[in-house]
Parts: sequence; C-alpha cells; structure tokens
Amino acid sequence: MWRSPTCRFRPSSASAPAWPSRPNGCWTQPWPRLCWARQRASSAGTIRSTASPCGRRPAAKRCWSGACARIRPARTGCCCGSRPTSCALRRRTPFVSPWGASGSTTETGVATFRFALEYDGADFCGWQVQAEGTRTVQGTLEAALQQVTGATARVTAAGRTDAGVHAERQVASVTVETGLDPDRLGRALNGVLPHDLTVVDCAAAPDAFHARYGARSKLYCYRIWNGASASPLRRARCYRVAPPLDVEAMRKGAVSLLGTHDFTAFQAAGSPVRSSVRTLTRLDVEGSPRGEIGLWVEANGFLRHMVRNLAGTLIEVGLGRREAASVAELLKSRNRQRAGPTAPARALTLVRVDY
Amino acid sequence: MWRSPTCRFRPSSASAPAWPSRPNGCWTQPWPRLCWARQRASSAGTIRSTASPCGRRPAAKRCWSGACARIRPARTGCCCGSRPTSCALRRRTPFVSPWGASGSTTETGVATFRFALEYDGADFCGWQVQAEGTRTVQGTLEAALQQVTGATARVTAAGRTDAGVHAERQVASVTVETGLDPDRLGRALNGVLPHDLTVVDCAAAPDAFHARYGARSKLYCYRIWNGASASPLRRARCYRVAPPLDVEAMRKGAVSLLGTHDFTAFQAAGSPVRSSVRTLTRLDVEGSPRGEIGLWVEANGFLRHMVRNLAGTLIEVGLGRREAASVAELLKSRNRQRAGPTAPARALTLVRVDY
Repeated sequence: MWRSPTCRFRPSSASAPAWPSRPNGCWTQPWPRLCWARQRASSAGTIRSTASPCGRRPAAKRCWSGACARIRPARTGCCCGSRPTSCALRRRTPFVSPWGASGSTTETGVATFRFALEYDGADFCGWQVQAEGTRTVQGTLEAALQQVTGATARVTAAGRTDAGVHAERQVASVTVETGLDPDRLGRALNGVLPHDLTVVDCAAAPDAFHARYGARSKLYCYRIWNGASASPLRRARCYRVAPPLDVEAMRKGAVSLLGTHDFTAFQAAGSPVRSSVRTLTRLDVEGSPRGEIGLWVEANGFLRHMVRNLAGTLIEVGLGRREAASVAELLKSRNRQRAGPTAPARALTLVRVDY
Repeated sequence: MWRSPTCRFRPSSASAPAWPSRPNGCWTQPWPRLCWARQRASSAGTIRSTASPCGRRPAAKRCWSGACARIRPARTGCCCGSRPTSCALRRRTPFVSPWGASGSTTETGVATFRFALEYDGADFCGWQVQAEGTRTVQGTLEAALQQVTGATARVTAAGRTDAGVHAERQVASVTVETGLDPDRLGRALNGVLPHDLTVVDCAAAPDAFHARYGARSKLYCYRIWNGASASPLRRARCYRVAPPLDVEAMRKGAVSLLGTHDFTAFQAAGSPVRSSVRTLTRLDVEGSPRGEIGLWVEANGFLRHMVRNLAGTLIEVGLGRREAASVAELLKSRNRQRAGPTAPARALTLVRVDY
C-alpha cells in the first residue's frame, strides 16, 4: 500500500487515548486540554502520539500549517486559542478503494495531498461551498473526492476565487483517507470531474502543508479587450472597454500601488479582515490600446475583490476619468467610495501560487 | 446621401429592359441571352447599362468578380456557362433606413460592402444557410442586414467554415440597397448581431469584389492541446491529444505537403469539385510536446475538411502511428481512405484572408 512520508494511520484502541467523536467520525468538543502535535507511523506501523499542553501554545503560523491544527475539528474553537481549520475526517471502517489499492485494504491511510487545479469559472459560483444546489469548485472537487476515495474531506484553496473567476493553476490541499497514491488519485479524480475542472497535478504534501496559509504569493491576470468592436473569441475571458485606453497613464497610476500599503480603498465593502495591509510585488500593464491589455498583479495576499477593484480604478485612469497621480491619494484615503468600480469577474484569472 | 464609388442605382423604367423577376424581387429564368456587364451611376445619377452577348463569354475570374456575375440570380445557371453567384436583390419601393440616411430617402442606393467578421463557431451550424431553424453565420448576418437595411441580400464568405469552426477575420461581401455608409452599417449591424458574431470592419468594396473568388490565400490555425491532463480553459478552441506528440516527426511529415499538389487524399468523401489541386504555401507546426501545438496552414484554396484531415494525419504521425515519410506517398495515392481521421472542428480557426 502506498504511504506518504507523513501518512497517519488511525491508531488502534490500545495505543490511542479515548478520543471523543461525533457520529460522523469528526473530532469534537469537549476538547481535552492537549493539542495533538504529531502522530506519525513508525516504520513498524505503530503510532507515536505527542501531546503538548496548551501552555506551550504554538506560534500562529506553526499552528495553521502543522499537524496540530489539522487534526482539530472544523468550526469549533481550540482550547489553546488558535483558530481551527479543516477537519481530517476519519472513517470508522476500513475503506476499500474502487480503483484498487496496491497494498492491504484492511489498513486505512490518512494522507495530505496538494492539487494544482485548472478551471473555467464561467459556470461555477466561485470556489467556496455554498447552499446545497449551488455549483462551486470546492463542492465539485469534494464530491469527486468522496466518489473516488469514499471519504468525506474538506479541500482548502490558496485563494477563494469569486464566481466567474478562472484559474490556470489554483493550489488546493486536502487531508483524506485513501489507499491511492497521488498519481492514481489525480487520474481517478479527472475521471469523474466535469470538463470545466481538472486536476493538473496531484502530489503528496508534507504533513504541515496548508494551501492557503502556506502561500507566499499569488499572481492574477486581469484581461481587457480594448478593440473598436467586440471580440466573440475573447468574450469569455476579457472585459471589453470600447473607448481607447491610455495605457501609459495606467502604468503611471499602477506604480504608486506597488509595495506594502493598506489596501482598504480597494477592498469590497463589508469584508472584515484583521489587517488590510498587503505587499504588491508586481502590477504590470501589458499590451497597447486597441488590443488586448493584461493587468498582471502579484502580492503576498489579496483582499476580497482587490484585483477587480484595482482593475476598475486603473481602467478609469486609462479612460481619462481620473488622474494617474490621484491613485496614490486614493490609496492613502482608505476610502472604498473613492476607488473605481469592481470590474467584471469573468476577465480575472488566478495564474499561479508560489510557496 | 452617401454613395460608394461603385454605387449602382436601380434603373428607371425608361432606361432598363423588362427584367423578369420573382415575387421576392430576385432575378430568375427565363434569362435573356445577355449578361449585364456593368451598371454604373454617372455623376448625373443616370444609369449606363452595357449588355454583352454570351458569345463573348468573359474569363471565369472576370465573370465571378465582376458585376456581370453579381446581378445574375443565385442557384440558377447562366446562359453563358459560368456559375451563378449571389443575387443582388432589389426592392421595388424606395427604402427609408431606420438609422437615417444622410441624403435623400427617395433615392435608393445599391452598393457592395466588404465585411471582416469574427465569430465563435461553437453555437453555429457552420457558415452556410441551411434549413429554417438552423443557426448559421450567414443566416444570422443576413437577418441582421435585413433588420438594419430593410433589404434582403445574400452574403458571400471567403471560406464556408464548418459547424464549430471559428473565425478571427473571415471576409464576406454583400451587395445591398442601403443609405448607410460603411461605418454606420458596421455599427448598426453590431447593434443587432448576437454576442458570438461581430463585424470587425466594414468597408466599401469595388463593384468587382467577390469575397470567395477574389481571395488569394487563406490562413487557418488548428490548435492541439498536448498536456498530460485536460485544459478547461483551452477546451473550447483546442483538440486534446493525451499521449505526448513527436512534434519533429510532424514537421517532417508536413514538409512533403508544401507546394502544388492534388489533395484528393485530404478531401472529404463525396465533395465533387472541378479540381482538387491546391497550392500550400505554409504548413508550420509550432509549439512543443506537453504544451499547446498550432498547425498553421496557408493555401490559395482549401477542399472540404482539408485542414482537419491534414491535422488528423499529422497527429497520427506525431503519435507514431504512421511514418513521416509516408505522408508523401499518401498524397500521391489520392486515396482518402489512407489518410488520417478528420480532426474535430472546434479546434480550427480561420485566421486571415488575403486578396
């Protein structure tokens, strides 16, 4: 049976403490005043569990990306104050993969995987799971995972894209119980996924990997079609701006946005976050008037609708409706009311995530 | 009133012969043994009609591209043996444009226009008008023309693309009665055309212009996605070939197709044409394995399904199912049975037409 370097087996009753559980197998409250920092299968297949008292609260980053956070339940607070993350759901009975595990099927393996995903966002209501019946990327992928592995698992994305936003290489992580190796899991998922969502790459991830909180930077591209007439072949992935754009003015306006700033002015209204400070490392305006123009935006993180609000503001600069120099003042004002409109989602693509 | 340099006015009853007509205003048989070679409006607005007897049959090219052919009825043979083309339908009553002609509305002007069209072929059943209820590019454009000008006219394309084939810059010609100048006609058409068909450019054309028979060469691109996994963002315009392709072998196979040859082996079965000889001036295989590969094919003319059959054959070469050297023998055999399959239409785009 394939086993990732960080594969964690369900401990036997002899080696494990009496863990409280919900009927569906999810860890729940009351939570013991212990954080399970590591559970690793030794070469002999036994479990080594290390308990750490809450008094030794791990650093926030460590808690998010380590095994400590991942084995705690979703949507319940942790005794040690750090936020919970996805729950590694565990089955009570050994799972026999329909694709055939290469090893014993009486053992069950929980492993972490890292997916690279490509999707056409046109027919998805964004990444995040919503009410039943709403088609989302996360929901579609989780349904496919359940179909392939038989296990219920929560997939986490590097960036939760809006409805209509595409991805060339979105990164997602999941901890799931399966006997499939990464290559077979990726191919099995592609066998059941719809045509507008594909697993480009599936790899075993370190136990500490978390797609969202481990991401160092993300690159988005916002595409504008500035032709004199509409372009049917670009319509699905470009936003058409009919009057000719002053690309040089857009470039000048973009310069003042580079660096570390408080981007409250470009954040969707009513999006509470701890900090609106982000570091923009790239904001290139590529292309020329009466052609296709691409806004390439890279940062260590993005606020909600941030790229689309940046695009809407720079388009106003290109149309001569606001001065290039005014963008710096707008940034300082931290006033969303003063920024440009939110540009349409269909022209935005998540190009790459770096770790 | 705007008037093209070759604008032809409907002759008055005094200057014109008793032209036979159908109820819808289309010229019909019995056809007089005369070809109306030229009808031009003089500076004073009078009509000069020159009749040429059939004994002086014009050269095929001249007949196709001149006014002689264009005022003959569609789908009826000509007395002088040359093939008929689109019929320049004429209204019996003066037409008042809803967009407002800049001159007198009691005069009616028949002018020839040249369109550059872009369309996403996914939802069209090809270019050519078919049975009622079938959505075609030609039918959609003619309906829009009728809506804008009030006149019924037949539009001719440089290349009659198959169902699913896209066009970046298809060229079409039409002779229609309208008081609109080319710029206004183009904008008016775009106002009523659906989102997957656009008039990129509309210009006044010489009286002798015929989009199909005047075309000197056409450039097509066939796009192949050779990634290890499917690409949702390329799916609409690429044909996915899963195993890695030997691009070098495809290039070698392509070389033997360049030049003037009888391309019967690459012609769709049951497509009677006078001659299957065409001159291929370009057949480039651009790209690399495990990426996007483009087959750029340029020729003075194409047989039915020719590019798709070339693509299907070169893909077989790339997959190692046939030798690159065998393509030359296949070409000489003139046997469609020996060539590769017809590659899917959705990956083909008409890029450009030169005159």
